[in-house]
Amino acid sequence: MLTTPLVAIVMGSQSDWPTMRHAAEVLDNLKIEYEARIVSAHRTPDRLVDFAKSAKADGFKVIIAGAGGAAHLPGMIASMTTLPVFGVPVRSKALSGQDSLLSIVQMPGGIPVGTLAIGEPGAINAALLAAAVLALSDAEIDAALDRYRRDQSGAVPLFPQDDE
Amino acid sequence: MLTTPLVAIVMGSQSDWPTMRHAAEVLDNLKIEYEARIVSAHRTPDRLVDFAKSAKADGFKVIIAGAGGAAHLPGMIASMTTLPVFGVPVRSKALSGQDSLLSIVQMPGGIPVGTLAIGEPGAINAALLAAAVLALSDAEIDAALDRYRRDQSGAVPLFPQDDE
Amino acid sequence: MLTTPLVAIVMGSQSDWPTMRHAAEVLDNLKIEYEARIVSAHRTPDRLVDFAKSAKADGFKVIIAGAGGAAHLPGMIASMTTLPVFGVPVRSKALSGQDSLLSIVQMPGGIPVGTLAIGEPGAINAALLAAAVLALSDAEIDAALDRYRRDQSGAVPLFPQDDE
Amino acid sequence: MLTTPLVAIVMGSQSDWPTMRHAAEVLDNLKIEYEARIVSAHRTPDRLVDFAKSAKADGFKVIIAGAGGAAHLPGMIASMTTLPVFGVPVRSKALSGQDSLLSIVQMPGGIPVGTLAIGEPGAINAALLAAAVLALSDAEIDAALDRYRRDQSGAVPLFPQDDE
Amino acid sequence: MLTTPLVAIVMGSQSDWPTMRHAAEVLDNLKIEYEARIVSAHRTPDRLVDFAKSAKADGFKVIIAGAGGAAHLPGMIASMTTLPVFGVPVRSKALSGQDSLLSIVQMPGGIPVGTLAIGEPGAINAALLAAAVLALSDAEIDAALDRYRRDQSGAVPLFPQDDE
Amino acid sequence: MLTTPLVAIVMGSQSDWPTMRHAAEVLDNLKIEYEARIVSAHRTPDRLVDFAKSAKADGFKVIIAGAGGAAHLPGMIASMTTLPVFGVPVRSKALSGQDSLLSIVQMPGGIPVGTLAIGEPGAINAALLAAAVLALSDAEIDAALDRYRRDQSGAVPLFPQDDE
Amino acid sequence: MLTTPLVAIVMGSQSDWPTMRHAAEVLDNLKIEYEARIVSAHRTPDRLVDFAKSAKADGFKVIIAGAGGAAHLPGMIASMTTLPVFGVPVRSKALSGQDSLLSIVQMPGGIPVGTLAIGEPGAINAALLAAAVLALSDAEIDAALDRYRRDQSGAVPLFPQDDE
Amino acid sequence: MLTTPLVAIVMGSQSDWPTMRHAAEVLDNLKIEYEARIVSAHRTPDRLVDFAKSAKADGFKVIIAGAGGAAHLPGMIASMTTLPVFGVPVRSKALSGQDSLLSIVQMPGGIPVGTLAIGEPGAINAALLAAAVLALSDAEIDAALDRYRRDQSGAVPLFPQDDE
Repeated sequence: MLTTPLVAIVMGSQSDWPTMRHAAEVLDNLKIEYEARIVSAHRTPDRLVDFAKSAKADGFKVIIAGAGGAAHLPGMIASMTTLPVFGVPVRSKALSGQDSLLSIVQMPGGIPVGTLAIGEPGAINAALLAAAVLALSDAEIDAALDRYRRDQSGAVPLFPQDDE
Repeated sequence: MLTTPLVAIVMGSQSDWPTMRHAAEVLDNLKIEYEARIVSAHRTPDRLVDFAKSAKADGFKVIIAGAGGAAHLPGMIASMTTLPVFGVPVRSKALSGQDSLLSIVQMPGGIPVGTLAIGEPGAINAALLAAAVLALSDAEIDAALDRYRRDQSGAVPLFPQDDE
Repeated sequence: MLTTPLVAIVMGSQSDWPTMRHAAEVLDNLKIEYEARIVSAHRTPDRLVDFAKSAKADGFKVIIAGAGGAAHLPGMIASMTTLPVFGVPVRSKALSGQDSLLSIVQMPGGIPVGTLAIGEPGAINAALLAAAVLALSDAEIDAALDRYRRDQSGAVPLFPQDDE
Repeated sequence: MLTTPLVAIVMGSQSDWPTMRHAAEVLDNLKIEYEARIVSAHRTPDRLVDFAKSAKADGFKVIIAGAGGAAHLPGMIASMTTLPVFGVPVRSKALSGQDSLLSIVQMPGGIPVGTLAIGEPGAINAALLAAAVLALSDAEIDAALDRYRRDQSGAVPLFPQDDE
Repeated sequence: MLTTPLVAIVMGSQSDWPTMRHAAEVLDNLKIEYEARIVSAHRTPDRLVDFAKSAKADGFKVIIAGAGGAAHLPGMIASMTTLPVFGVPVRSKALSGQDSLLSIVQMPGGIPVGTLAIGEPGAINAALLAAAVLALSDAEIDAALDRYRRDQSGAVPLFPQDDE
Repeated sequence: MLTTPLVAIVMGSQSDWPTMRHAAEVLDNLKIEYEARIVSAHRTPDRLVDFAKSAKADGFKVIIAGAGGAAHLPGMIASMTTLPVFGVPVRSKALSGQDSLLSIVQMPGGIPVGTLAIGEPGAINAALLAAAVLALSDAEIDAALDRYRRDQSGAVPLFPQDDE
Repeated sequence: MLTTPLVAIVMGSQSDWPTMRHAAEVLDNLKIEYEARIVSAHRTPDRLVDFAKSAKADGFKVIIAGAGGAAHLPGMIASMTTLPVFGVPVRSKALSGQDSLLSIVQMPGGIPVGTLAIGEPGAINAALLAAAVLALSDAEIDAALDRYRRDQSGAVPLFPQDDE
Repeated sequence: MLTTPLVAIVMGSQSDWPTMRHAAEVLDNLKIEYEARIVSAHRTPDRLVDFAKSAKADGFKVIIAGAGGAAHLPGMIASMTTLPVFGVPVRSKALSGQDSLLSIVQMPGGIPVGTLAIGEPGAINAALLAAAVLALSDAEIDAALDRYRRDQSGAVPLFPQDDE
């Protein structure tokens, strides 16, 4: 029997994958099932509507959405589901993700998108935030998250090293 | 028999109307029929889809869309129609419309939104640009537009006046 | 028997309350118990450590943290708990919340803070996002959230009105 | 008999061509005739006046203007014609096109320039917006634009691929 | 016999006068003849061309040009004359003059505009810079400028005073 | 007998060392003892508390703290010590240190962090500022600092050289 | 016998006093002698040179310098003394202190200015940082600073209050 | 007999020369004598005072000053001379010259610096503006400037070329 994925990682285009794969890697590390899909708010609006409206019934618990530039994907998904949506601003070419960040975070009152940092750190943290949400009702994920954080703290060296 | 409106003026909320009514006033001045509606990309996504997908069949020729903050309305309409869409970034409270501007103008290649200035000047110009588009195949609008521009030029005084 | 609050609303100072009370009002509306506290990362660092380290054991499920300027509160709480932390950038005097936003959202990979919009809309949305998280394992909150969103959509008028 | 070009693609200097050629490619794809010219607002102001004042009589229907830095070309053309003008902010060296964007989009009420995104996406979209305008009275262009958009939607893969 | 004005103060609209009159006041103080005119680059492009092309023959020595938003006036004048042009970015409503500043100062190599600060200090300084230029060949202006600067230095109090 | 280090150079991660080593080099040059440590506000909050609370008792006189992105390290140290804290905003990937700068400098009234420039110049200057503080009660450091500054002035060539 | 002031509070103009007096008030509170002077880098450059070159010999230990806009005062003082200089960016009219901040903080390697937050919080913190420096060799100031910080922590209420 | 140089090109450091040499090249082209010097406002404040105070007596007519970061050189020179000063913001490492631009252009009313664009175009234009000033009383420079501008206009091709 297959495990239903709990997390959907969606992104506006193939070019967002080098950023968003970092979210996938964290979920792999924490042994949380996910599905990664390309859903372009602008080039495939029907796919966006289908995905967002059925995400809850499909069994997803958390949605991670990454996009760049005039990044409408996270907010538009949030407008069509009550699942928690976490947005990752992907670095854009001209404005380095400042446009992505403002397009995702400045949502009007009523439709929330929890926004993470621009680029790779944001993708990592979207996965950790999804895990934190799932850990509220899943002791295994809770334990995995604790371990992840302890390992992370333990890996910080005491002194900076030269030749790095 | 009713004249079908050629231009749709849509906006994300009632609070955008003090800005967007300037577009309406210019269209009134040029005797171009329009319809003004509230379509919230985030609070009424179904209305957004219905509007955008039927706009062309409904007889609209040009769409003017105003929104503030994470302003997704113009781009999402553009994703679901091939009609020309002109976006007006409405001034936002914290960032004075810088978020609105970037959310509207930084569309990815493939889905165009012709973006105007932040706030009232942008609303005026969206109407004038709609008129310029319609004037290509309507001599009356062309003449009205010429007159508008001539009047505008003629109204510029030669010398600045004190006591203003 | 008292209901244990599920959500902690913390803020850096009394001056953040006019913003953060909007989160409280949404939670009231959704009948979700919360506790509002002042925890200054800079003026009361011990209180910060106490709060963050015991929040999980105290029964909180979600933390909403609002702060302005060099806003370190949300990120520092997140560094000491694995509970989901949602950050609200409060508008600052000189930079209108641009500093608050960047100080909260640009967290390094490893310690997530789901960041909402600057000011009042962000406070409203932090509460809604907390509700979305809690709704994953609480049918009543899920129903309340659905109702909230339906009411919100239903309240959007079709046409802009003058004299507003 | 020659087909008169419907679209003029003008740019401030040869260095804008690597950006603006993307507009030309889209028009080629849609089989829309165009002419590409260099018109420097600052180094060839007479050429600017000649071009802008005669563009309508010369048979152009839409003008696409790209420029960088203190980008005055689109707005100055718009001041001398009632044809629709679409502006493309070319990336500048020091400010990455933020100066170009503001110089083009922040036109005063009265003289509209429909502004697209910074750089290559903006050039592509200027061509698509020109096509959308022309499609209002040209069924072939309308069909070509529909096809372009359908092809574009169809080309979005469902899943992100590694090794890209 | 009339004294020919040496300095032209031009501005894009009547609304720039409350800023630009500060330039006039400084020139009055220094007893330098000037003429103040409204020349809108966008609404009166013919007036712009006429003014800029004849300014040198008309006897002007220095041009001060103020404009706001997509402020094209100083740069376009500079493109049509070799007289020194000094630009004053007038504060704009949404972006507080950041758009005006970049539109004026980021001129391409080849066409210089000496740009002053945003708003009133810029207008004052444009007049002082014009005076500095004229002082190179006019001993009276040189003396007046020296006096102005000495008076200015002398007026700086040694200690800050309360109740101000 | 060992000399107790007077200056602590702390940084958020190993990746800050290429920037912060410039502080170390200046202190070496001035013969001021220091200790360099990695203290991550987010990944090692306990280490942060331990370090900050005992720094004064440990004999440190000045703390130099470097961090990037949502840079909370300098401010959080300052909240737990009354020693002078000097913050160095390390360049971040997406925003080039603008986030680091605002996160460090925009501290609320009550908890000071003396902030230096973004990147290497800031690290150099943090060390020089620490030396200036120590020089107030140490004649050798005072003399070393004087020598450093004189050497620096003396090393400025009179004329620019080609082929550099 | 007069107590020699340990701290100089200098500012570019009388209009900076409403900001800088907050530094004075903190020093009063901590019973640290200071002298407040107006030294305009631009309008009184000789006074600047005199002040900066003699500050050390005059017995000052720390210099607090506040200025707005193109704020050169702190950096220019720092270029002529080895005393610690702390800079306060005063809010400017058009850019709200963003220009002041960058003009003060972005000093080149070699000449340090410890920069505080924009406006009133920065003035308060400049005084506290000066106190922290003086406390290194003055037990009374050290005790006063400890008390100030304890009082400050104690004054933070536990719960936000309405009607504020 | 030697020709006295009319223009001084000063810059804050050797690293500014790759930018400022473009000013020198334009002056060479126009056969205007100049002298290029390094004057660091921060590392050589005495040289700054000496240069600025004697520039007029030394026979200079115009000063071109380039600097980066917290760029105080142009404004400080302007505070000590009534000669026209033109400032060139050199691109900085972290902020790409945005700090340089604001530090130079946002001068307070009373001390003008005519500011050019960031980087190479600004250096070119500073030289052309100096030439424009000198041309007011020197027919040869006037003619050279006319020729330069005509050549420049003539060199703009009519059509963009591929393979560039």
